[in-house]
Amino acid sequence: MADLAEASRVAPQFDAAFRAGFAELLAWRRDVRHFRPGAAPDEAVLAELFDLTALAPSVGNCQPTRFVRVDEAARRTAIRANFEAANREALDAYHGERAELYARLKLAGLRDSPIQLAVFCDEATEQGHGLGARTMPEARRYSTVCALHTFWLAARARGLGVGWVSILNPAGIAEALDVPRAWTFIGYLCVGFPRDEHLVPELEREGWQRREAHPILQR
Amino acid sequence: MADLAEASRVAPQFDAAFRAGFAELLAWRRDVRHFRPGAAPDEAVLAELFDLTALAPSVGNCQPTRFVRVDEAARRTAIRANFEAANREALDAYHGERAELYARLKLAGLRDSPIQLAVFCDEATEQGHGLGARTMPEARRYSTVCALHTFWLAARARGLGVGWVSILNPAGIAEALDVPRAWTFIGYLCVGFPRDEHLVPELEREGWQRREAHPILQR
Repeated sequence: MADLAEASRVAPQFDAAFRAGFAELLAWRRDVRHFRPGAAPDEAVLAELFDLTALAPSVGNCQPTRFVRVDEAARRTAIRANFEAANREALDAYHGERAELYARLKLAGLRDSPIQLAVFCDEATEQGHGLGARTMPEARRYSTVCALHTFWLAARARGLGVGWVSILNPAGIAEALDVPRAWTFIGYLCVGFPRDEHLVPELEREGWQRREAHPILQR
Repeated sequence: MADLAEASRVAPQFDAAFRAGFAELLAWRRDVRHFRPGAAPDEAVLAELFDLTALAPSVGNCQPTRFVRVDEAARRTAIRANFEAANREALDAYHGERAELYARLKLAGLRDSPIQLAVFCDEATEQGHGLGARTMPEARRYSTVCALHTFWLAARARGLGVGWVSILNPAGIAEALDVPRAWTFIGYLCVGFPRDEHLVPELEREGWQRREAHPILQR
């Protein structure tokens, strides 16, 4: 954690070389679904990643993020069953070629990834005293998304791949992992060493959806 | 945008020097509220930042983020009035010393920042064909948060400061900016050159809330 004594340190300048590296990091982040089986990251590296997530922005500095590391076989089976049910439901909504493509994408990574993290937001945290979350309580959940995104980028910088699974039924996940009622499920992360590396997202390679620029309106 | 021909490029290794720089970037990101008046970033730099946000993860590659650049004086006045009303309401919830501290924090930056961006999520986007957002439609909004967070970090790497304002009434913002009904307001960003730089968050310096590590449960 930042030391108050450090407050007087001079802000660093980020040079062109760093910025080029950062752009590469963003470009190579990828949503990873295929992991090298059996290869688990060091615990020290994981601890470092968790430390970095504490630097993510949070509304009123409330840091509502709660990580649940899912190791027990029975819990993982429950998560996979949850995914399979949600996936089946989603498949029903697509027809013909698109449905086949969808099925082929093998979205899970839930089988192979050595580290699995369910990420929750504690909606009832007293930390931050509710500052900034009165008119927009969803800002707490958005804070957790920033922590999750920070974890993802930091993992990539360590050569690790992360896949964010959202084809899940949130209520079932909270139940399977036995977490407090006030915790909202945000996303499920599969973490490990990627089996192969691609600059272009799998969905784009498979013809699902090309990347586009974000529209910018002027007002 | 990534070229398909680049797909065969070898994934970069991120070395210790880059990782140290990335950790500095996270630590110095800060929620900036005090800007140097009159100093506006180059348009070319802004365009680069928007390009980088297109690399942020989005569910099903649906890229639902919509930026609205707020320049017109009347629109900015409406945003400020919205903030002031929401702030007053929030102040009523605190009493005594804490309320004074809260007031002193001058949360806005809405007056001084040369660039102001309202960030929305298009809930009705056809892009991505709904993949991954069926059981968790909120995943679209979380994608927008990842884009916003990417903008924030990229801006910091360019020496710019960003302040995320959430003490706002979302319905009023959408109305003031006349955006499509299907767009959900995510956050309002004040962008400019920071007046001063601090490693420790303002809320922590002012005794509001210290930074803590995120809890990690095992299951």
